[in-house]
Amino acid sequence: MFQLLKTEVKARRGVFTCPHGTVQTPVFMNVGTCGAIKGAVSAHDLKEIGCQIELSNTYHLHLRPGDDVVRQMGGLHKFMDWDGPMLTDSGGFQVFSLSGLRKITEEGVTFASHIDGKRIFMGPEESMRIQSNLGSDIAMAFDECVENPAPYDYVKASCERTARWLDRCAVEHRKLNEAPGCVNPGQMLFGINQGGTYADLRKWHMDEIAKLDCDGYAIGGLAVGEPTQTMYDIIEAVEPHMPKEKPRYLMGVGTPSNIIEGVARGVDFFDCVMPARNARHGKLYTWEGTINIKNEKYKLDSRPIDPTCNCPVCRSFSRAYLRHLLTAGEMLAMRLAVLHNLHFYNELMLRIREALDQGRFEAFRQKFSGKLDRPAADPGI
Amino acid sequence: MFQLLKTEVKARRGVFTCPHGTVQTPVFMNVGTCGAIKGAVSAHDLKEIGCQIELSNTYHLHLRPGDDVVRQMGGLHKFMDWDGPMLTDSGGFQVFSLSGLRKITEEGVTFASHIDGKRIFMGPEESMRIQSNLGSDIAMAFDECVENPAPYDYVKASCERTARWLDRCAVEHRKLNEAPGCVNPGQMLFGINQGGTYADLRKWHMDEIAKLDCDGYAIGGLAVGEPTQTMYDIIEAVEPHMPKEKPRYLMGVGTPSNIIEGVARGVDFFDCVMPARNARHGKLYTWEGTINIKNEKYKLDSRPIDPTCNCPVCRSFSRAYLRHLLTAGEMLAMRLAVLHNLHFYNELMLRIREALDQGRFEAFRQKFSGKLDRPAADPGI
Ligand SMILES: [Zn+2]
Ligand SMILES: [Zn+2]
Repeated sequence: MFQLLKTEVKARRGVFTCPHGTVQTPVFMNVGTCGAIKGAVSAHDLKEIGCQIELSNTYHLHLRPGDDVVRQMGGLHKFMDWDGPMLTDSGGFQVFSLSGLRKITEEGVTFASHIDGKRIFMGPEESMRIQSNLGSDIAMAFDECVENPAPYDYVKASCERTARWLDRCAVEHRKLNEAPGCVNPGQMLFGINQGGTYADLRKWHMDEIAKLDCDGYAIGGLAVGEPTQTMYDIIEAVEPHMPKEKPRYLMGVGTPSNIIEGVARGVDFFDCVMPARNARHGKLYTWEGTINIKNEKYKLDSRPIDPTCNCPVCRSFSRAYLRHLLTAGEMLAMRLAVLHNLHFYNELMLRIREALDQGRFEAFRQKFSGKLDRPAADPGI
Repeated sequence: MFQLLKTEVKARRGVFTCPHGTVQTPVFMNVGTCGAIKGAVSAHDLKEIGCQIELSNTYHLHLRPGDDVVRQMGGLHKFMDWDGPMLTDSGGFQVFSLSGLRKITEEGVTFASHIDGKRIFMGPEESMRIQSNLGSDIAMAFDECVENPAPYDYVKASCERTARWLDRCAVEHRKLNEAPGCVNPGQMLFGINQGGTYADLRKWHMDEIAKLDCDGYAIGGLAVGEPTQTMYDIIEAVEPHMPKEKPRYLMGVGTPSNIIEGVARGVDFFDCVMPARNARHGKLYTWEGTINIKNEKYKLDSRPIDPTCNCPVCRSFSRAYLRHLLTAGEMLAMRLAVLHNLHFYNELMLRIREALDQGRFEAFRQKFSGKLDRPAADPGI
C-alpha cells in the first residue's frame, strides 16, 4: 500500500507499507546480492546505517544456494536474519547481463549459469516461483532488459513480449500467494516498464502495464549504456503515464545526483551497487563531494571521512586509519568503506525526505545535484 | 603488575594490570596484525566477543603505515580505536619468517621487506623505538627466533646473543618511557626465552634473562616445526626457572588442546592466528570438536554453529546460511566465521579460569584436551 503524503512539483513524499513494515519514500534500497551485502556487511549492520529496505537478487539466489534451500530455511528474511521490508528483482537483468549463450522465446529464456555453465530456463512463472520461495515483500515482474542503444524493431518486439510476460507473472503470482505453505502470502508484485530509449515505446508499454493493478511500477532498462540526459528524458516521458497512487522505482540508479534528479522527476524507489562498489575502490561520499581515501594526502589525516557524518565509521575511525587499511589490503577497509557509503546514501534519502516535508526540495536539489558526484574541493573538508 | 590468585598443580589463575586495564589470566590474546583483525573484524567487534587483550605486529606496522604515522596519530590504541590492554610483538618472528635475504650481526638484523624488498635494519633499540611509537601496554624484547630443529651450536650462539639483546632492550625501553612525549610511559617489557629444543640451553637462557626484572616472560621459538610433545617437554623444563610472580606467555600457541596443556604447565598468556585462519577455511570450533562448515551435510542445517555458543553469530545465523556465504565466496562468511572462532577461544579461556577458580581444572582438562581439536562426532551436535 502506498500513500502519497506531499508533492513538490513532480517530486513525491510518500509512505509505503508491506508485510515486513513501513518504508518512508523516496528511499534507496540497500543491495544484498546473495543474501549478504558485499564488504562483510550483515543484515544487522543494515539496521545500524539507516537501511529501510533490502534488495536481493533472484538470479544469484536461484543458482546458489538455490531458492528451494532458502524456502526450506523459512525464507530469505529468516535465512539472512533481516526482519524489515525486502524486494527481490526478477532475475531478468542478470540473465541478460551475466549469463552466457542465452536464447529467448515467447516462453522465456534459456541461459548458461555464470558459475558452472549449467543450462537453466527462466520465464515469468519460474521467476515468480523463485521469488515466492524467497518470500520477499516485493516481487519484480520478469522482463527482458535490452542494452542501450538497440534497434527500434527489436525493442518494440521485446517490450511487447515483456508486456505479455507481465500478464503471466500476475496470474502466477496470485496463484502462488494463495497456495498453502506460501512463505509470504502478502508478497506484492511490481511491473517493469521497458522500451529502451524510445519515448513512444516507453509510453505505450507503460499504458499497457498500468492496466494491470500492480502494487507498484518500475522503470527498467535505463542506466545501461545511454547518456544521462537520455535517461532523464525517458523518465520525463514515462512519468505522466505512471499511476499517481502507486510507487515508482527507477532500477539500478545511481549516483547521488542521479537520485536527486530522479526524485525531481517523480521517482520513489532507487537501488544501485555503486556505493558499495565505489567503497571497495576507496571512493567515498561526503557532503562536499567525493574523496579517494587512498590518496597520500590522507596519510596523517585524523579527521573522519566526513566530519558531519554520524555513521559508525565516522564516529570512531580516521581517514588515516581507513587509508592504511585499504593500502594494506585489510578486509576491514572494505567493510568500513561500504558501511560509510551505504549510510551516506540512506542519509541522502533522509535529507531529501526532510526537504520535501519542509517544501524546500528544489533548494536542496540546487545545492547538491552535481556537487555530490564531483571530487570534494580541497581543503574544504 | 601480576597477581597470582590461585594455583592447581602447575596451572595458575591470576590477574594482570597494565596502563589500559586489567586482564584475567589465563588469557588468549586476539591478533590484529596490521591494526585490524583478519576477516573484517574491528576493535569494536573484539569487545563483543570477549577479547581482553589485543596483539599487534611490530614488523607489519613498521612497514605499513609506519610506526611514525601511528605515533603521529596518537598511538595504536587511538589509531584502531581500542581502549583495552594491548601487546606488540618484537618484530623478531616476522623478520625471521617473512622477510628475505636477512643478515644477522651482533648489532641486529638487516632484512628485505616482504612488501617491496626494501632493505631494513632492526636491532633491539629499533624494535623498542617502534613499539614505543605504537604505544602498546606490553612491548616484547627483540629476539632471534630459530626454526626447529637447528644445530646445537647455532642455537647456543643465538640464544646467548638474544640474552645480550635483552639487556639492550631493557636499557632502551627505560630511556624511551622516560622521554618527553612518550605515547605510553607505562609500557611494560616482557623478555623472551629461546634455546630451540635443547632443554639445557632453554634453562640457562631463562636463568639469564630472569636476572633482569622484566614485567613478564615469554617462551618463544616453539610451535615452529617441532613435535607437540617436544613443545610440552620444553615448557616443563623451562617453567621451574621462570619467576613465579611474573606472567608467562607461550608465543604463537595454539590449538584449544595446546592451550589447555599450556595452562596445565603453568602458562598464563597465549596468542595464535589459528582460530582466524581456520575460520577463513570453514573450520569452526564447537564444544564437541571441530566442524567444517563447507560440508554438504550443513546445507539445510538450521542450527547455529554451536547450539551452546552465545556469540553474535550463533545467536542469529544458521549453519546453512554460513555454508552458503562461504560457498558463494561472500566476505561476510569470513567475518562471521572469524567472530565465532575468536569468541570460542575467549570463551575457552573463561571456562579455564572458572575451572581454576573452582578447583576443577584437572577435570576440565581431562574432558576437553584432545577432544576440542578433533572433528565433532556426528550427529552429536
Ligand atoms: Zn560516515
Ligand atoms: Zn558462536
